[in-house]
Amino acid sequence: MKYFRSSGLILLGLFLVCKPLFAEDGYRLWLRYEPIQDAQQKQRYQSMLQSVHFPGNSPTLKVARDELRRGLSGLLGAFPSLTRSVTSDGVLVIGTPASSNIISALHLDENLQAAGKEGYLIQRLDINGKSALIIAANSDIGVLYGVFHFLRLLQTGRALSGIAIAESPRIRYRLLNHWDNLDRTVERGYAGFSLWDWHKLPDYTKPRYTDYARANASIGINGTVLTNVNANADVLTPQYLKKVAALADVFRPYGIRVYLTARFSAPVEIGGLETADPLEPAVVDWWKQKVGEIYRDIPDFGGFLVKANSEGQPGPQDYHRTHADGANLLANALEPHGGIVMWRAFVYSSDVPEDRAKQAYNEFTPLDGRFRDNVLVQVKNGPIDFQPREPFHPLFGAMPHTPLMMEFQITQEYLGQGTHLVYLAPLYKETLSSDTYAKGKGSYVAQVVDGSLEHHRISGIAGVSNIGTDRNWTSHPFAQANWYAFGRLAWDHTLSSAAIADEWIRMTFTNDEAFIRPVKEMMLTSRAIAVNYMTPLGLHHIMGRGHHYGPAPWVSQGRPDWTAVYYHRADTAGIGFDRTESGSNAVSQYYPPVAQKFGDLETCPEKFLLWFHHLPWDYTTHSGRTLWNELVHRYYQGADSVAWMQEKWASVKGMIDKQRYDKVKAFLKIQHQEAVWWRNACLLYFQTYSRRPIPEDYPPPDQSLEYYRTLKFKYAPGQ
Amino acid sequence: MKYFRSSGLILLGLFLVCKPLFAEDGYRLWLRYEPIQDAQQKQRYQSMLQSVHFPGNSPTLKVARDELRRGLSGLLGAFPSLTRSVTSDGVLVIGTPASSNIISALHLDENLQAAGKEGYLIQRLDINGKSALIIAANSDIGVLYGVFHFLRLLQTGRALSGIAIAESPRIRYRLLNHWDNLDRTVERGYAGFSLWDWHKLPDYTKPRYTDYARANASIGINGTVLTNVNANADVLTPQYLKKVAALADVFRPYGIRVYLTARFSAPVEIGGLETADPLEPAVVDWWKQKVGEIYRDIPDFGGFLVKANSEGQPGPQDYHRTHADGANLLANALEPHGGIVMWRAFVYSSDVPEDRAKQAYNEFTPLDGRFRDNVLVQVKNGPIDFQPREPFHPLFGAMPHTPLMMEFQITQEYLGQGTHLVYLAPLYKETLSSDTYAKGKGSYVAQVVDGSLEHHRISGIAGVSNIGTDRNWTSHPFAQANWYAFGRLAWDHTLSSAAIADEWIRMTFTNDEAFIRPVKEMMLTSRAIAVNYMTPLGLHHIMGRGHHYGPAPWVSQGRPDWTAVYYHRADTAGIGFDRTESGSNAVSQYYPPVAQKFGDLETCPEKFLLWFHHLPWDYTTHSGRTLWNELVHRYYQGADSVAWMQEKWASVKGMIDKQRYDKVKAFLKIQHQEAVWWRNACLLYFQTYSRRPIPEDYPPPDQSLEYYRTLKFKYAPGQ
Repeated sequence: MKYFRSSGLILLGLFLVCKPLFAEDGYRLWLRYEPIQDAQQKQRYQSMLQSVHFPGNSPTLKVARDELRRGLSGLLGAFPSLTRSVTSDGVLVIGTPASSNIISALHLDENLQAAGKEGYLIQRLDINGKSALIIAANSDIGVLYGVFHFLRLLQTGRALSGIAIAESPRIRYRLLNHWDNLDRTVERGYAGFSLWDWHKLPDYTKPRYTDYARANASIGINGTVLTNVNANADVLTPQYLKKVAALADVFRPYGIRVYLTARFSAPVEIGGLETADPLEPAVVDWWKQKVGEIYRDIPDFGGFLVKANSEGQPGPQDYHRTHADGANLLANALEPHGGIVMWRAFVYSSDVPEDRAKQAYNEFTPLDGRFRDNVLVQVKNGPIDFQPREPFHPLFGAMPHTPLMMEFQITQEYLGQGTHLVYLAPLYKETLSSDTYAKGKGSYVAQVVDGSLEHHRISGIAGVSNIGTDRNWTSHPFAQANWYAFGRLAWDHTLSSAAIADEWIRMTFTNDEAFIRPVKEMMLTSRAIAVNYMTPLGLHHIMGRGHHYGPAPWVSQGRPDWTAVYYHRADTAGIGFDRTESGSNAVSQYYPPVAQKFGDLETCPEKFLLWFHHLPWDYTTHSGRTLWNELVHRYYQGADSVAWMQEKWASVKGMIDKQRYDKVKAFLKIQHQEAVWWRNACLLYFQTYSRRPIPEDYPPPDQSLEYYRTLKFKYAPGQ
Repeated sequence: MKYFRSSGLILLGLFLVCKPLFAEDGYRLWLRYEPIQDAQQKQRYQSMLQSVHFPGNSPTLKVARDELRRGLSGLLGAFPSLTRSVTSDGVLVIGTPASSNIISALHLDENLQAAGKEGYLIQRLDINGKSALIIAANSDIGVLYGVFHFLRLLQTGRALSGIAIAESPRIRYRLLNHWDNLDRTVERGYAGFSLWDWHKLPDYTKPRYTDYARANASIGINGTVLTNVNANADVLTPQYLKKVAALADVFRPYGIRVYLTARFSAPVEIGGLETADPLEPAVVDWWKQKVGEIYRDIPDFGGFLVKANSEGQPGPQDYHRTHADGANLLANALEPHGGIVMWRAFVYSSDVPEDRAKQAYNEFTPLDGRFRDNVLVQVKNGPIDFQPREPFHPLFGAMPHTPLMMEFQITQEYLGQGTHLVYLAPLYKETLSSDTYAKGKGSYVAQVVDGSLEHHRISGIAGVSNIGTDRNWTSHPFAQANWYAFGRLAWDHTLSSAAIADEWIRMTFTNDEAFIRPVKEMMLTSRAIAVNYMTPLGLHHIMGRGHHYGPAPWVSQGRPDWTAVYYHRADTAGIGFDRTESGSNAVSQYYPPVAQKFGDLETCPEKFLLWFHHLPWDYTTHSGRTLWNELVHRYYQGADSVAWMQEKWASVKGMIDKQRYDKVKAFLKIQHQEAVWWRNACLLYFQTYSRRPIPEDYPPPDQSLEYYRTLKFKYAPGQ
C-alpha cells in the first residue's frame, strides 16, 4: 500500500461518464432512424410489421428497399421477415401494379390515378382477410417517396392503425439550385465548399453523393441545378459533361434529374462562334448540337437555368434581343428531349433604374405570352433580393400566360449566414400565402406557382441550396430544417410551418415533448426575431458590401442600387423608401387591392412600413411610440430575443447529444453578439439623422459608430 | 394465396447482406481502436491490464487518460477497473514523479533522465511483488506520448510480457506546415479545403480541431504552422490573433504549439510604416511590439516561418539586406519569449540563375554563422522542388554553424496529388540516409538535421501537410500513411519504411497477415513506381504548368526556370541537365566524394543520371539498352506496375471494409489512367527529339502528342 497516497477517489468519478463510440455529428440529417424509445409504440409497430412483401428489381425499387431496411432496422431494432404472400396479420406490402402482383390484384386504380406519376398511397387494408399495410404507387419513384413517408410516420411516432394517406406533389419541378463554382467555392455558401468534387469525377463518385440524393428524395426534391447562376461555360464542354453524367447516374434511382446553368455567351466562349445572338442560325444550331450532346450522355437531363443580363452576366439584350428570344433559343433546343428552361427574372440592367424594386416587372410583363411552352420564368420571392422580409414579388399574378417558378433562398445570405438560427418556413409561407388578387380575392402566390390559378401544364419551385462540405451539410444544425422545410413545402405548400418544424425536430432530435415544445417555439419565432435585429419595419438592404455579412447602413459608394443609403433613404426628416404614387410608385405594380393596401399608411402592414413609405422620425406607430422610438424598441427586442433563445436552448440541455447541443449553444452566442452588433451599428448610424436619444431604459451601445464602421471582413465566406 | 405469384425467392436473398450502421469513412485514421480479433491475444492483454492507476488533473494528463479510456475500451471491450494501489498482478501505472506517488517511489531517475522533456518509459516491473506495467515520464506530455505508444503496442499486437521501452525524440521541433490561406483554399492541397474555419473562430472551435491534435500527438508532432508560406499579413492583426489563440488553446493539452508565417512586409501592410527594412529602428520596434502582442494572447506561441525573396514574396533583399538580417530581426523579437524563426532556403531570386539547383546554396552558405541562436534555416530535401526524386540538397552539411531544418512534402504536389498511392517514407529515408561527407564518411543528412553532427542546441523537421476538410483528412486513404510516416520519422529517423508501414497498416486496417503482406509490398514499391511513370532516370520538373497536374514536358513559355525544357534539355542529340564541370557544375556544391560520384558517369547512380548529365539517345545504360529504349522501358514499367498494384489490391478484397476498399480501387484506376497518360505524353514528346521508335513489344500510345498537349485543367485543385 505504500504507493497509494491520494487521488483515488477523485479518479473513480472521472471514468464514469460514458461516451458513445460515434459522436452525433449531424451527417444523418433527419434520416437518423434511431431506435424508437417508447416501448409500447415500438411494440405496436412491430406487431403491424411482422413481415414485408416488396418485390421488384429496378434501381429505384432497390434503393427504396435499402432505405426501408435501413429505416426499420434502426427504428425497430431488426428488419421484419420477408414473405411471399399475405397469410397472416401484420404484412407490409409495397409496390406498383407492375412490380407487385398483390398490389395489382388490389385494383387500386381509382385511388392510384389521383396519385399521378409521383404520388403514392399508404393504407391499412384487409388482404385475404388479414390486416395489412400497403405502400402503393404508379411508378417506382412513387414507391420510394411512399417508403420515405412511411418511415417518417414511424420516426415521428404516428399511429398506423387507421391510416389512409394519399399524396401527390402540387408542383412538378422541385429543385435545388446550387450556386457552386467549378473551383468548388460556393457563392453565398456558408457550409464549407461545393459537394461536387469535379476533379475526381467521373472516375470517383463519393458515397456522399448518394446520401445527398437520399436526403433530397426523402423530401420529394426531384431535380438539382449543379452550377452557379453566375455561370461558367466550361461545364458544357465534353470534359465536364462526362462528370455531370456521372452525378446524374448516381442521382437517377432517386428520381433526381440534373440541370445546368447555361452561360448565354457559351457559343462564343467554348463554341468558337463570333456571336451568341439568339436569332443567328449558327447560334441556334450550336445550342441544338450541344443539347444533343448532353442528352447522349444524360438521357434524362432536366434542362437549363439561366441568369442573363443581370449583374454582368451576358444575355440576349447584348444583341438587342429580348429575354423571350434568349429563353426560346434554349427551349427550342431542349424541347425535343423533354427539357425545360428556367429563365430568371432577377435582372440588373446596366442602367440604374428609378427604383430597383420595379425592374423585373417592367422588363418581364411585356413578354408575357411570348415564351415557349417549356419555359418557366423563375422569380425570387420578393422584388429586391432575399431580404429578411420583403413583400411578395409583383410579377406573381402579372404574367398569366407564363408559368412562374418560385425562387426561395435556403442559404441564409442575408439571414445570419452560417451561424444564426433562423427557421425559414414562416418566410416561405408568408410569401406563398400572399394574395395577389390577380383573379380577384384568393389568388394566392401559391396558386400562381403551382399553376392552378391559370391551369399551366408545368409548374416549378427552386431553393438556393445551403448545402456544402461541412460534415452536417449546412453548418448550423438548425439550417438543416430549412432544407427540409423547403422540400416539404415544394411537395405540399399547404403544410404549416409548425407541422413541418414538429416532424423535423422529431426526426432530427427526439420525440421527447419536453424538448419539442421549447425548440419549436424558438424555431417559429426565429425569423421574426432576425427581422427585428436586422431590418425591422420594412428596412432592407443595409448589410455589409460584397460579403453581405453584418450591418452596414452607411454603404454609399459605388452603383447606387447596390448601396444601403439608396434603400433606407434616411435623412434628418425621416427614413424609408417612398414607393407610393408620390414616390417611385412601385405599389402600382400590384393589383389594385394590394397596391391600395401597401400605398395607404392606414392599411400598410407595419412590417412593410419603410419598404413603401418615407416617414418622419416622430411619425406615430401602432404602439403609440414615435417611429424612432419604435425602431429602437424593435432592434432591442430583436437582440433580447436571441438571449431568450439562448435560455430556451439552455433549458433542453441533456435531452440530446452533447455534440449538437454544444454547437447550437456556441452558434447562439455568436448570434447574440451579432444581433447586438446589428442593433448598435444601425441605431448609432440612424441616430446621426434622427438626432434623437436612445431612451434611457435601454442600455446604451458599448461601442462607437466609428468602431462599427471600421470593421472589415475580407475573407468572409460565400463571396 | 391468390396475391402471390413470383419473386419471393429472389427477395429472400436480397435482405441477407448485413451492413454496419456506420461506414468506415477513414475519419479515425490510425486511431481506430477496433476490438482485438485474436481472442488469445486479447485475453493476454486483459490479464496484464486488470486495473489502472492514473492520477493527475492537468489538461494534458486528462486528455491522456481520455485517450487511454477510448483506446482500451475499444480494443479490449471495456476499460479496466481503477485502483489506488498495486496489491495484485496486472496493474497499469501511469504518471510522472510529480503526478503519481507510485511512479515517484520507483526511483526511475536515471532512466527518466535519458527520456528528457518529451520521452517516456514503458516497462514491465514488479511493484510490491506484483507484476505491473508502467508508463512513466518526466512531463505530462511525455505521459501522453507514452500512452499513445502503449496503445500502439496493443493495436499492432505486440507482446507486453518482457517489455522495456525507453523513447525520446531525436529532433526537437517536429512541425506540420499548412499552406492554408485565410479564405480556406490550400496551396497544393488535395484533400478539400483548410481545416481552419477562420470565420467562426474564436467563438466556435470544431471538435475536429481536437481530433487533429490527437492525431498529431499520437505520432509526436509538437508544432503546427497554421498559415501559408506565401503569407498574408492579416493573420497578424488583432482580429486574427484572437482566432489563432483559440486554436492554440485547443492544441495546448496535446503538446502542440502554434506558429505563423510572417509576411516580411507586414510592418508596411498592417503596421502603417513606410518600410520593412530590417535595420530600421521603427521596423525593429514594430516587430517587437507585435510579438509581445502575440505572446499576450498565446503564451506558448512557437514562432515564425518565413518565405522571403522567393516567388514574389517580399524580403530583406528588397532593402539590400541579407537573409540573415531579415531572420535576425524576427529572432530578436521572439528570443525573450522563447520563440524561434524558421527561415526558408527555398529562394527564387528575381533574376534567372545559371542553374536553379545552385541558387539556395549560393545565397545561404555565405551567411553561415550569421544567424541568431534561435534561427533555423529550413531546407527542402532536394535542390529543386519536391520532385518525385531529387538528390539531397547540397546545403545539408554546408552550413555547419547553422541548424538546418528539413522540409519534406507530405502533400503530393508532384506525386499524383490526391489520387495516387505513393508511400513517401522511402523518399524521406532516401534523403535522410544520404551521406553528405561534411565531416567525412558517415555524415548523414539525418545527423545534420537532428543536430548531432555539429552538436546544435536546436533541431527541426517540417512536413508540408496533406490534410484538408475531406472526411478522411487526406483524400487518398493511403495518404494517411504519409502523415503518419512523417511524424514517426520526425520522432525517430532510424525507423525503417517497412516498420512504419507495418504498424500503420495494422492500426489503420487490420492485423491480418494476408492483408498486410501484399499491401506493404505495394506501399514499399509505390514511390519507385511513380518515379518510373513520371520522371525516370533523374528527369525532373516536367509537369503541368501552374497546377502541376499531369505531364507537360513541352512547357517552354515564361520564366525559363519555371519551364520544363529548362530542366530536361532534350534535343536531337540527347537529353538531361549537364551539372558536371562541363555544365553548370552544380556537383561542385557537394563535398568532393559526393561531387565525384555524381559527376562521374561511371559512378553516378542511374536514378540521378539525367539530373547530372546530358547524354546522347544511344548512350548505353546499365541494362544494356540505349538511353531511349531504357526511358521507354521505365515509363512502360511504371504504368504496368500500377496495374500490378491494382491486382494486389483486388487480392485483398473482402479483408477490410467496403468503403475504403472501393475508394482505393477507384483511385488506383485513376492512377493507372494517369500513369499511362504520363508515359504516353512524355514518350511522344521526347520522341520528337530522339527520332527513334518505341520498340515493338510495347503497345503504342493510343492518343497523339497533340491530344495530350491540348488537355486543359483550369480548375485543378491546390493552385
